[in-house]
Amino acid sequence: MALTRRGFLAAAAAGLAAPPDSKTLVNAGRMRSHIEELSVFGRPPGGTFADGVSRVGFSDADVAGRRYVLGLMRAAGLEPRIDAAGNIFARRPGSDPKLEPVLFGSHIDSVPSGGNFDGDLGSLAAVEIIQTLNERRIQTRRPLEIVVWANEEGVAYNAVLFGSRAAAGKLMTTELDKVWNGVKKSEAVTKIGGQPLRIEQARLPAGGFRGYLELHIEQGGTLEKAGIPIGVVDGIVSIDRWEVTIKGFANHAGTTPMGERQDALLAAAHLTVAVNEIVTGEPGRQVGTVGHLTVSPNAQNVIPGLVQQTIELRDLSSDKVARLGRVIRERAGEIARRTRTEITLAPSNHSEGAPASRDMQEAIETASAGLGLECRHLPSGAGHDAQMMATLGAMGMIFVPSVAGISHSPRELTSWEDCARGANVLLGAVLALAG
Amino acid sequence: MALTRRGFLAAAAAGLAAPPDSKTLVNAGRMRSHIEELSVFGRPPGGTFADGVSRVGFSDADVAGRRYVLGLMRAAGLEPRIDAAGNIFARRPGSDPKLEPVLFGSHIDSVPSGGNFDGDLGSLAAVEIIQTLNERRIQTRRPLEIVVWANEEGVAYNAVLFGSRAAAGKLMTTELDKVWNGVKKSEAVTKIGGQPLRIEQARLPAGGFRGYLELHIEQGGTLEKAGIPIGVVDGIVSIDRWEVTIKGFANHAGTTPMGERQDALLAAAHLTVAVNEIVTGEPGRQVGTVGHLTVSPNAQNVIPGLVQQTIELRDLSSDKVARLGRVIRERAGEIARRTRTEITLAPSNHSEGAPASRDMQEAIETASAGLGLECRHLPSGAGHDAQMMATLGAMGMIFVPSVAGISHSPRELTSWEDCARGANVLLGAVLALAG
Repeated sequence: MALTRRGFLAAAAAGLAAPPDSKTLVNAGRMRSHIEELSVFGRPPGGTFADGVSRVGFSDADVAGRRYVLGLMRAAGLEPRIDAAGNIFARRPGSDPKLEPVLFGSHIDSVPSGGNFDGDLGSLAAVEIIQTLNERRIQTRRPLEIVVWANEEGVAYNAVLFGSRAAAGKLMTTELDKVWNGVKKSEAVTKIGGQPLRIEQARLPAGGFRGYLELHIEQGGTLEKAGIPIGVVDGIVSIDRWEVTIKGFANHAGTTPMGERQDALLAAAHLTVAVNEIVTGEPGRQVGTVGHLTVSPNAQNVIPGLVQQTIELRDLSSDKVARLGRVIRERAGEIARRTRTEITLAPSNHSEGAPASRDMQEAIETASAGLGLECRHLPSGAGHDAQMMATLGAMGMIFVPSVAGISHSPRELTSWEDCARGANVLLGAVLALAG
Repeated sequence: MALTRRGFLAAAAAGLAAPPDSKTLVNAGRMRSHIEELSVFGRPPGGTFADGVSRVGFSDADVAGRRYVLGLMRAAGLEPRIDAAGNIFARRPGSDPKLEPVLFGSHIDSVPSGGNFDGDLGSLAAVEIIQTLNERRIQTRRPLEIVVWANEEGVAYNAVLFGSRAAAGKLMTTELDKVWNGVKKSEAVTKIGGQPLRIEQARLPAGGFRGYLELHIEQGGTLEKAGIPIGVVDGIVSIDRWEVTIKGFANHAGTTPMGERQDALLAAAHLTVAVNEIVTGEPGRQVGTVGHLTVSPNAQNVIPGLVQQTIELRDLSSDKVARLGRVIRERAGEIARRTRTEITLAPSNHSEGAPASRDMQEAIETASAGLGLECRHLPSGAGHDAQMMATLGAMGMIFVPSVAGISHSPRELTSWEDCARGANVLLGAVLALAG
């Protein structure tokens, strides 16, 4: 006998919905097997699951991994389709075909030498939820649509959130002419089953879904440190990036008096310290990073004549990011005068943040509470496909703990228990929204 | 008629020693021609004099340049000989063969993409002085010995002052086993006419010369800025170098809160600023430089986990260098604690400074005054073969202005007038010492 949604949630909360031999609602063992099986595509030769994965978007490993996931979808009774950008969608019909679907999923591409949870968990949890609902014969009013976005990490062609940007209509058409490793991007899109000449057709209509949900690993250490299994994402941070060029004058380190130097690295050091001071100088969860820095000529006995470095700022509030950026730019001017160097800050990237919808956050909170799981609100410091979906409709994200906060590394790890908890909260939220 | 030394100096001071069509004592035009002719060996293909020179020690260009200089020495009536280390010596007899000679010269090897004055000026001025004395039939009491030291820059085998260290007995015998570009150093020494198996024979006895004099470009901008043509070197600075390793923890720049970071580059920036503050925090001519710095993983969205950088300190006083080094090391400890990183400073090089002898400085001052040339005392911030000779006997150095203080660059430049002034001061000092 199929349970009604309300009856199922009540049973789940009471711990009765799961079969007696399992504490979970989804089949956690099966989901784990799928994550382990997917990890083979892009695994270093001779490696194990612990050696992580290099499944860069559009690579042969990506194509093989996508084929594996397409197979899982078909095994779950779905008929997956690939849109013009290469995103994989699969729909489970609802009882009321006039209603907009609940959309959920993630991505399966990785950074080089990445981990097996970033994206994979959210993608395979989505498939698992369909399979679970099928097995329990749960019918939702709204259709459920699962998605695997193409090239989220954007390593290839240096174009993050490729598939979801296409869906949000935020793709520059010139992007398709870019060449990476000798291959034009349009060819790469064709390789994964997309149709670059019809890329416009990948656009989703605004309001075309009831809500978009994404389960993802936190990629930071907040949840693990606090011992809390579920994160309710307040929103995805706004990111501003600059390429900084500091021109000094390269000269002999022995014969140039201190007062006559134009030391580009000294200026860069002052600027790096200033970024940290400015960002930590006020309350809040904003972060600022100088992650990249190169020195020229970079010899121990030559005063550096040129430094190129990056500055990156992130915060939920794009206003705060912009304001901190202005303060840093002013400080850079002072440093340039003091060190007699020339400092230019060229904006290289602006990624608009995205708040999570209040009703999606509530659906996640309720699902967590129903399962007796403590949750905590936090921002997503990393970008996600979800931020593109936020431009079209309601968006929510569920985070699960990353061991030691490590991500984009083979050492990326989330316990299988936490993976299952996240999938169950996603299931509960999907059911709440699907009616 | 040959002038006596005293008569000659008096005539020079009165402007009477030079022929009526020249204001100089040496043949400045001939010396310029020699510098220009030598510049061909190691010149970039299709280049001109202004494109500088790459005459790395032991290279084919070095061998060709040395052959050219050997020819000039023979044309000046000398019989050059090559010692076991590859240094070129040539002696002009004095009237009293029992007296120790006055030794003077420099080197002709260069850094890659170096200039045409560093070393070349002092070497070819030495030849020019012999030729001038021959033409004017000036006989000195002491013998004059000119020298072209092998591989001063030490680019090959990363071994500065190779030839003069061999002469000073400061060569490690294991050095000859080093391999560079696939060639063993002993083979390289053979290539320039040395005898590596007899390298010990290159040692000069302590007190084996009356004094060692070297004319060199300043390589800094002090003389040019002050409009003073002649520098009297007080001594050659002591140099201490450290390789610094800063270990933090690489993590996601978006998801790691500021308070939880272990940012190796932030620590490096604090340390770089500290080196500058400590070095400029007290009076004196000491210099401190962070010239080399590399970041890992060096990605704009990853908190730097590892930085490797250098610190270099120079001053005439090795005590001051050591004291400043201790202060920097202490400060590094504080920075490590504050940034929760691990900072290690490994000493990588200690070059003991060398004071110039008082009597050699006076000989230079007197020669300058005799020519009506203003001179100024200054330290040599760079190392020179002269510092090795200072371990064996009296040493003095004459500096001439470097345009804009630029050196080790094709843009290295000293006006021909200043080159001639320097050669004439060297001539005057040599004559004063040679009696």
